[in-house]
Amino acid sequence: MPVRLIESEALFARAARVVPGGIYGHQSPALLVAGAYPSFFARGRGSHVWDADGNEYIDYMCSYGPIVLGHNHPVVEEAVAAQAREGNCFNGPTARFVELAERLVAITPWADWTVFAKNGSDVCTWATEVARAATGRKVIVKARGAYHGTHAWCSPFPGGTTAEDHANVREVPWNDLAALDAAIAAVADGVASIILTPFRHDAFHDSELPAPGYLEGVRARCDRHGIVFILDDVRAGFRLHLGGSGEHFGVRPDLSCYCKAIANGHPLAACVGRESLRSAAQDVFFTGSYFTSAVPHAAALACLDELDRSDGLPRMAALGTRLCRGLEAAGRSHGFDVVTSGPPALPFMSFRDDPGQTSNRLFCAAAVERGVYFHPHHNWFLSAAHTDADIDRTLAVADEAFAIVAATRR
Amino acid sequence: MPVRLIESEALFARAARVVPGGIYGHQSPALLVAGAYPSFFARGRGSHVWDADGNEYIDYMCSYGPIVLGHNHPVVEEAVAAQAREGNCFNGPTARFVELAERLVAITPWADWTVFAKNGSDVCTWATEVARAATGRKVIVKARGAYHGTHAWCSPFPGGTTAEDHANVREVPWNDLAALDAAIAAVADGVASIILTPFRHDAFHDSELPAPGYLEGVRARCDRHGIVFILDDVRAGFRLHLGGSGEHFGVRPDLSCYCKAIANGHPLAACVGRESLRSAAQDVFFTGSYFTSAVPHAAALACLDELDRSDGLPRMAALGTRLCRGLEAAGRSHGFDVVTSGPPALPFMSFRDDPGQTSNRLFCAAAVERGVYFHPHHNWFLSAAHTDADIDRTLAVADEAFAIVAATRR
Repeated sequence: MPVRLIESEALFARAARVVPGGIYGHQSPALLVAGAYPSFFARGRGSHVWDADGNEYIDYMCSYGPIVLGHNHPVVEEAVAAQAREGNCFNGPTARFVELAERLVAITPWADWTVFAKNGSDVCTWATEVARAATGRKVIVKARGAYHGTHAWCSPFPGGTTAEDHANVREVPWNDLAALDAAIAAVADGVASIILTPFRHDAFHDSELPAPGYLEGVRARCDRHGIVFILDDVRAGFRLHLGGSGEHFGVRPDLSCYCKAIANGHPLAACVGRESLRSAAQDVFFTGSYFTSAVPHAAALACLDELDRSDGLPRMAALGTRLCRGLEAAGRSHGFDVVTSGPPALPFMSFRDDPGQTSNRLFCAAAVERGVYFHPHHNWFLSAAHTDADIDRTLAVADEAFAIVAATRR
Repeated sequence: MPVRLIESEALFARAARVVPGGIYGHQSPALLVAGAYPSFFARGRGSHVWDADGNEYIDYMCSYGPIVLGHNHPVVEEAVAAQAREGNCFNGPTARFVELAERLVAITPWADWTVFAKNGSDVCTWATEVARAATGRKVIVKARGAYHGTHAWCSPFPGGTTAEDHANVREVPWNDLAALDAAIAAVADGVASIILTPFRHDAFHDSELPAPGYLEGVRARCDRHGIVFILDDVRAGFRLHLGGSGEHFGVRPDLSCYCKAIANGHPLAACVGRESLRSAAQDVFFTGSYFTSAVPHAAALACLDELDRSDGLPRMAALGTRLCRGLEAAGRSHGFDVVTSGPPALPFMSFRDDPGQTSNRLFCAAAVERGVYFHPHHNWFLSAAHTDADIDRTLAVADEAFAIVAATRR
């Protein structure tokens, strides 16, 4: 057991007794590098987090996306505390519900309405059901390997799912309009929906931007065949464009799903949609004990305000670009051909010709041991709280980490 | 527009423009009495809430369950604020995750592990998937009319669902072991799970307690046929017994689902399970952006502590009993045969021979206009913050409300 992770490992040992797998889902230690990564956290401020042993990290995962302004952002937390003093969870919504729905409609050029939920999974699955209600069709087309949540129709793992759960789902390769045409043609009764992320950000894979014309081609096919175009903007939303990542890439879907960055870590998901789908949206029952709770709505209003006011999006893009160019240069200086991929605000780095991302695991383990929290298999996230000093320190650590990887190759 | 609800109606008009149906799900005004109920809330303290117009109500819905200690409970909110100062949503859980899992396992006599999520729907559906993974079977048996969430297999409304979503679901009448036997016998490949609420609490229906021997009979059949018994304790959990409503009714399931009262309004759901299902639980992928967030875990630890320390459960039962006996007497004095049903901590009242619950709608509308928030079609909830003075005032209002219903019958 590494000395720096004693408390984290002790907590994990306790967790393993009372939680199946100790920690489950995307945060499972099985998806990281055993012995290098802390499993438990204690504190966060801005772009830095502290694990259960008090080790400090520059945080490039941002809680897998939600922390877009930095941990414990004072403007958001002040809005949260003010709302909490009045109350949070009632027999109906508060004015914050209306204000946030109006805000999302106002900032999304093509959207006419909004609904709120708690998980990205909630809104992605609900959007497919709205598409079914609107079209009277069953089949959902998605990109192979794309993650849209844990519901049985799209879960990345087969455990507990049935053939019937997958009966109305078709998968196509990303960036392949010919395959999409073939998939559409093969469904005699018509496709209800195509659901896509704005760029390919599958775990264990370099990110891939949409090829020129790809998203526009999807849009054209949806229009031609009466298919509902769902943009799953859960992961990228509010890091590329406040009007949705479709605006960044030049495409306008019919439904767009948000979660993560919407409220800087407070639990909220949302789906925005077009007028033509309002009636179908009313027909698909959607509710939860906390869907109308006011504190996350207050957090989201403050978060969107602050992102806008502080030029957080261009800052993330600029810092992410500096990070990527710096990593490429540092890698080159140690003889590596490193690949950075994805938009700079959600970058990923890998080593070319690195089966099993083995070198990347070594690199990331060396980085996290030196206080820089990257992920070897999942895209990273910048926040508006990251600084040039963070990037400087990160690149210094990266230089050491590349040296360690180089040493193992000798 | 009623003068007392001007702001609430104005907010609803704004909501109707930017949210399909204005307010959706279980809080939809379409499920209440138009013109009588406020749609928007502003503030809560203890057993009282204030709507967007400043009208005060004694709250017998408790946000449809979550508020079990009263709104803005100081002990819970202090724990929340303390945790929030450190942080909430990280790249992994905090020590609160372990502490709460240990607590739930400790207070549930038969449970060995816990998982956390955000919605009751999350955990109920996941539990059925764990049952499928454990048994290698597909079919889920549920009680007809029972609500287990919004996922397509069990949504109370058909919009957006497909035949395949329902292909592996069988419905049986509540309290009918012969029908259950027939349903089990009819599934050649075996039933994966029987999911039941601890008592029947369907909306638009009097509550029905389990008949003597019913839940025990379900348990025996699960044991005999290797079926996983899931208790959906989302609505009743932590109001009848801290060890789960199964303890109250004398039955021990294999998986039990919680949400609502677990954290006094903070967003959290949980499933506890037996050792025999741990491996299956690891096989069914389950995650969400906020599943490991620390603030709701801190809220739940404080909430369960306080419920225990304050004798909240016997207090809810005693006050609920006083309320029910008082309502029956007040009804009788106006010539009505009113029926109270369900456990006293989650009571419901109806008028005998009242098609469409028309008299109950009149009664509840008169009550809400006088500051007592009942629901005409959904079971009510006591909290530990309700007082004898609340019950006194409520019964005085009920007397006036019965008089109004009586006047319309003359």
